[in-house]
Amino acid sequence: MGTFAISQFGQQLGPHSGIVELMDDLGVAMAQGNMLMMGGGNPAIIPEVVEVFRQRMQAIAAGPEFDRMVSIYDPPAGNAKTLDALAGLLQERFGWDIGPENLAVTGGGQTAFFLLFNLLAGPQTDGSIKRILFPLAPEYIGYANQGLHPDIFTTIPPRVDHDETDGFFKYRIDFDRLTIDDSIGALCVSRPTNPTGNVLTDAEMDHLASLAAEHDVPLIIDNAYGAPFPNIIFEEVTPLWTPHTILTLSLSKLGLPGTRTAFVAGPPEIIQALSAANCVLSLANNNVGQYLVRELFENRQLFDLCEGIVRPYYQTRAQEAVRWVREAFGETPVNIHRPEGALFLWLRFPKLPITSKQLYERLKARRVLIIPGHYFFFGLAESHPHAHECIRMTYSQDPKVVQEGIAILADEVRKVYQQDQR
Amino acid sequence: MGTFAISQFGQQLGPHSGIVELMDDLGVAMAQGNMLMMGGGNPAIIPEVVEVFRQRMQAIAAGPEFDRMVSIYDPPAGNAKTLDALAGLLQERFGWDIGPENLAVTGGGQTAFFLLFNLLAGPQTDGSIKRILFPLAPEYIGYANQGLHPDIFTTIPPRVDHDETDGFFKYRIDFDRLTIDDSIGALCVSRPTNPTGNVLTDAEMDHLASLAAEHDVPLIIDNAYGAPFPNIIFEEVTPLWTPHTILTLSLSKLGLPGTRTAFVAGPPEIIQALSAANCVLSLANNNVGQYLVRELFENRQLFDLCEGIVRPYYQTRAQEAVRWVREAFGETPVNIHRPEGALFLWLRFPKLPITSKQLYERLKARRVLIIPGHYFFFGLAESHPHAHECIRMTYSQDPKVVQEGIAILADEVRKVYQQDQR
Repeated sequence: MGTFAISQFGQQLGPHSGIVELMDDLGVAMAQGNMLMMGGGNPAIIPEVVEVFRQRMQAIAAGPEFDRMVSIYDPPAGNAKTLDALAGLLQERFGWDIGPENLAVTGGGQTAFFLLFNLLAGPQTDGSIKRILFPLAPEYIGYANQGLHPDIFTTIPPRVDHDETDGFFKYRIDFDRLTIDDSIGALCVSRPTNPTGNVLTDAEMDHLASLAAEHDVPLIIDNAYGAPFPNIIFEEVTPLWTPHTILTLSLSKLGLPGTRTAFVAGPPEIIQALSAANCVLSLANNNVGQYLVRELFENRQLFDLCEGIVRPYYQTRAQEAVRWVREAFGETPVNIHRPEGALFLWLRFPKLPITSKQLYERLKARRVLIIPGHYFFFGLAESHPHAHECIRMTYSQDPKVVQEGIAILADEVRKVYQQDQR
Repeated sequence: MGTFAISQFGQQLGPHSGIVELMDDLGVAMAQGNMLMMGGGNPAIIPEVVEVFRQRMQAIAAGPEFDRMVSIYDPPAGNAKTLDALAGLLQERFGWDIGPENLAVTGGGQTAFFLLFNLLAGPQTDGSIKRILFPLAPEYIGYANQGLHPDIFTTIPPRVDHDETDGFFKYRIDFDRLTIDDSIGALCVSRPTNPTGNVLTDAEMDHLASLAAEHDVPLIIDNAYGAPFPNIIFEEVTPLWTPHTILTLSLSKLGLPGTRTAFVAGPPEIIQALSAANCVLSLANNNVGQYLVRELFENRQLFDLCEGIVRPYYQTRAQEAVRWVREAFGETPVNIHRPEGALFLWLRFPKLPITSKQLYERLKARRVLIIPGHYFFFGLAESHPHAHECIRMTYSQDPKVVQEGIAILADEVRKVYQQDQR
């Protein structure tokens, strides 16, 4: 038997992409249980949250709802009752003009972005090529290999603000460099941002929204960590909804990553195209996540869950992680991006004498998993100094793991700087 | 706001494909509850089967397994314990040389085929284009729009055998017309076949396997209805496993379509490429189906379930559907493909004076949903007379619905023939 031919598609969505490496590491680490996992994006297992879903599942399993949940293909857009409940919740919470025709389900946010990017960019029927513009690098590693056409992503490097009062830095959109021409099919940001924990300000979002309206292109907002769920966002900001907005929401960071459930809100024409493509790709969605949350959407218990438990949990975890980093690093150089949301710290080691990829390998040899920063700088016209000086570390796992991992990280970075001086 | 540009990808995986129409009809019908549903592929809700999964879910929800099921991203290939259990089951049942390295999970069979077709066909890195060869039309409607590159499917029209003793006809592969050149990336069959309920004979499979080996291309076998689960197969045949085989298995027709869970068995290099692409597309798989079946795999209870309940259930349903068709049609012309498996009858109305699409519309107006046959004849070089004379009808729903639907179908077909004579 020879080696079977694998297509361009297979090379593009291939085994050497950052997200595959990340998920393999994460999977192996979680399975083996002997790694200090600060690499992946697995949310914390918060007992109070699991209990809510356990009780919902027990209630479902006790009656005929279970039969429908496991046995019936719902329409490609998702379960009608769940979509109604979500529309009602968003209307009530934010006063948005939104109905079920604005909503569709996909099997997780990753699938939603694969579909959105390739629906809104790549080869057009007139032969032209459109691209997705990310106004602010670094951005989510999982997007980098999702374009079916090569090079459909364009990214703008950040302005870097340093806050002398508390020592954090924060990335800001460099609007002077942001130009939108006819080749741009959509803008895209994550808010809070994976990997940095940045939360774009309301002023930045308003500016992006006006650009999207002016150029009549969608503004995709990856709201995987945002409001109203899971609401892992530590700043007072306003969610955006306009006729040009495509907003993705996910159940993963609420505590249900194993169900693969995301919702996409947007203009009805986009929602229809998305649902049709999702049907060809997936036939129908899995029902379990939708069934688990529907009642929480309907009775608004979701708000209590997110504001009373999920957000405070992660805010405390962020603060303790920052404290541990500062304690462990001492005089060793480290800058921390201001943690405004999500479940990561984004650390910069100024003038690090090795690449972040090399640091990743050295840490992996010491049983500590982080993600090297360069994966998050795809689509840039020129390389950015932060790409090889930064790492993403997750603080969602067991506090002992995080504290021990940070201690080893600090020790290794210190050695790197010291070896360079010799 | 103008109309947003939708890419070629969006047109290709678009709202006018047969599978989208089918799933929309199915979803609306199931939601409204006032249609006689013989269109979609929703399996029956068999109470004894649902009870098995209900008890499994209750056991999972009672303990820490639930926490892991909903809260953890497993590796892209799937849950290691479930894959181990499946490998053990296939080794024991069929004596196959198969391990977890031969297995991967996807979010349902539809996603597995999207990935397989585009990994094994379409543009290659050397600029050539490979295609998927279906040795026997008609084939599953859901494949038709899954090629990212247009026209990657080639299909061979069937030979038609009539059995004078019992009146059934049966499609057979026309090996005289089956030529494999360098442009073929893989062969693909469904066995049992959706839409016809055909089961390719062992001789036909052996012939295909030898062609695949000779030309060193994979032979993809869609085993969604086959052995060992759900085992909706009424003939004594042997499942095929060779170094060139890619076999897909699904939990849908076992009774878990709402969980979207499929397994792909194949050469490790294909499995790795599939898992990587699935990771870029989906990040990870949903866990629920895998958790629900793992114990049934481990203790082999699955065999009892399929052979004791699922197969006999559908065999009885097939026999009664055939009886009702013959009773209802009387002297009105109808030929039935021999129902050897799956959950459909494939009916031919010889020299039908209208197209099967027109018949579909007339039946829909009378609240009966079936699928017109032409959707299953994609990829043919020339049109085939059966395309517009055949329909697929599902016999898995409530017997009263099926019997009433068949009566209306027969009445409408009779009117069509009578109107033509006037």
